[in-house]
Amino acid sequence: MERRSFFRNLGISTLLAGSFGLSRTAQASPSKAYAGKNLAEKRLKELGITLPEAPKAMAAYVPFRIVGNMLYVAGQGPIHSEAHPGIGKVGLDLNDEQAYQAARTTAYNILAQVKKACDGDLDRVVQCVQIQGIVNCVDGYKNSPRVINGASELLRDVFGERGLGARAAIGTNSLPMNIACEVLSIFEIRT
Amino acid sequence: MERRSFFRNLGISTLLAGSFGLSRTAQASPSKAYAGKNLAEKRLKELGITLPEAPKAMAAYVPFRIVGNMLYVAGQGPIHSEAHPGIGKVGLDLNDEQAYQAARTTAYNILAQVKKACDGDLDRVVQCVQIQGIVNCVDGYKNSPRVINGASELLRDVFGERGLGARAAIGTNSLPMNIACEVLSIFEIRT
Amino acid sequence: MERRSFFRNLGISTLLAGSFGLSRTAQASPSKAYAGKNLAEKRLKELGITLPEAPKAMAAYVPFRIVGNMLYVAGQGPIHSEAHPGIGKVGLDLNDEQAYQAARTTAYNILAQVKKACDGDLDRVVQCVQIQGIVNCVDGYKNSPRVINGASELLRDVFGERGLGARAAIGTNSLPMNIACEVLSIFEIRT
Repeated sequence: MERRSFFRNLGISTLLAGSFGLSRTAQASPSKAYAGKNLAEKRLKELGITLPEAPKAMAAYVPFRIVGNMLYVAGQGPIHSEAHPGIGKVGLDLNDEQAYQAARTTAYNILAQVKKACDGDLDRVVQCVQIQGIVNCVDGYKNSPRVINGASELLRDVFGERGLGARAAIGTNSLPMNIACEVLSIFEIRT
Repeated sequence: MERRSFFRNLGISTLLAGSFGLSRTAQASPSKAYAGKNLAEKRLKELGITLPEAPKAMAAYVPFRIVGNMLYVAGQGPIHSEAHPGIGKVGLDLNDEQAYQAARTTAYNILAQVKKACDGDLDRVVQCVQIQGIVNCVDGYKNSPRVINGASELLRDVFGERGLGARAAIGTNSLPMNIACEVLSIFEIRT
Repeated sequence: MERRSFFRNLGISTLLAGSFGLSRTAQASPSKAYAGKNLAEKRLKELGITLPEAPKAMAAYVPFRIVGNMLYVAGQGPIHSEAHPGIGKVGLDLNDEQAYQAARTTAYNILAQVKKACDGDLDRVVQCVQIQGIVNCVDGYKNSPRVINGASELLRDVFGERGLGARAAIGTNSLPMNIACEVLSIFEIRT
């Protein structure tokens, strides 16, 4: 909340326009304003993040679909690594902080899909529209929003407030391959 | 079902046009037909409902997003009050009727978000498009549709059949802060 | 994966254009290319599938909504029959193969809704956009993608790769009436 107020107070204009590409001008005539600036890529570099290859579909689905200016990304899971353990049930195998990190690395995969869908240009993202975050957790677990913040806050780190979508965070008793979380997303993009 | 047939038999025209704003004329040229009528607000008043303030985001998300004529509302939960206990697991802490009431008050929050997104004018709603209702319940609980009807029936009470969306109702083992239900929604609105 | 590579290698053009209507020409000027060919119906016949009547809403919702070229289908469940037992919890009452079959018959109902929404013409489907598949399963069940493949693979059998959407498959502790799975879907259609 603090950060969002901060963005609003600035009128999302001068300072942030440079680093997040959020100026109204950019939205009004996007092609001229953002072309070639690689704003999102610069943010990723500042964050020290190298995106993975966009994960291929592991079953009968496609990693993303585009209809007009709407990009639908398939449910993504955490990258598996020792640094970011993304496998296990939250509240049993993973604690909240580990689950938060799992969600954050899940957003790496979301970004990789978005980048591929946008032919390599993340600055074509106008805004995140909808996020559905599902946490693999013990019965009665209450902190799924805190976990899914891991994904949402990375998207905000990269795109500014435009990276936040209308969101639902829920828990569940099981996810594919026992991953800690799965995040389904919809973005508005420039065509 | 009875009510929907009733609506259809009437051709959604004369009688209901007055109270629900459902006439084809209204859909064809909305700006003239519905402007200033406050039909939804009148329905709310008849139902004795005062909408709450639209809940602010409690984590890294936005309460709603608009893309063109599509309004995506973030997952809403029940209002907490003694009259409508919205906290607890259905089948354990809450019975079906209490959960139905929790879902109904959840729709108050949906409407509050929609109203805010429509600059205060609920009559800009063309139709509810999609509803995803998730019930926090004991393992094997079978009545999630009956629970989510609490939200759907309130939306129908306010907008008529246009308030019903393509819906999925499911159960789950946990929701944020142990709320009884969470409802994610998409609406078509007049821009 | 094999099949998708196969489709890609062919450039989704010559051979498949005849049986799946996937040619770029068909997408560029759909009205002339697909009109009256009943390609999807022919595929269903080849598969020996007779679609059921589109299930009516069993609660306060509509079976589908259309906004422009987007078709939102309500959550569908398996057809109940002795041949395809679609009731029960996966990992307890049903094994993976039975659950796969339940998901496959769920897609019969999806197709029945799509057909009804398209005034009887399944060839109006441009592509499946999003699939959300929820499996009623025991705690920690890992194979929800394999189960939901039952639905996705039938959609691919009928529409070719266009029948695959951006998908999320998850497990949960309960579904309405103890059905084995529920699938929510969005399609792009020709208007």
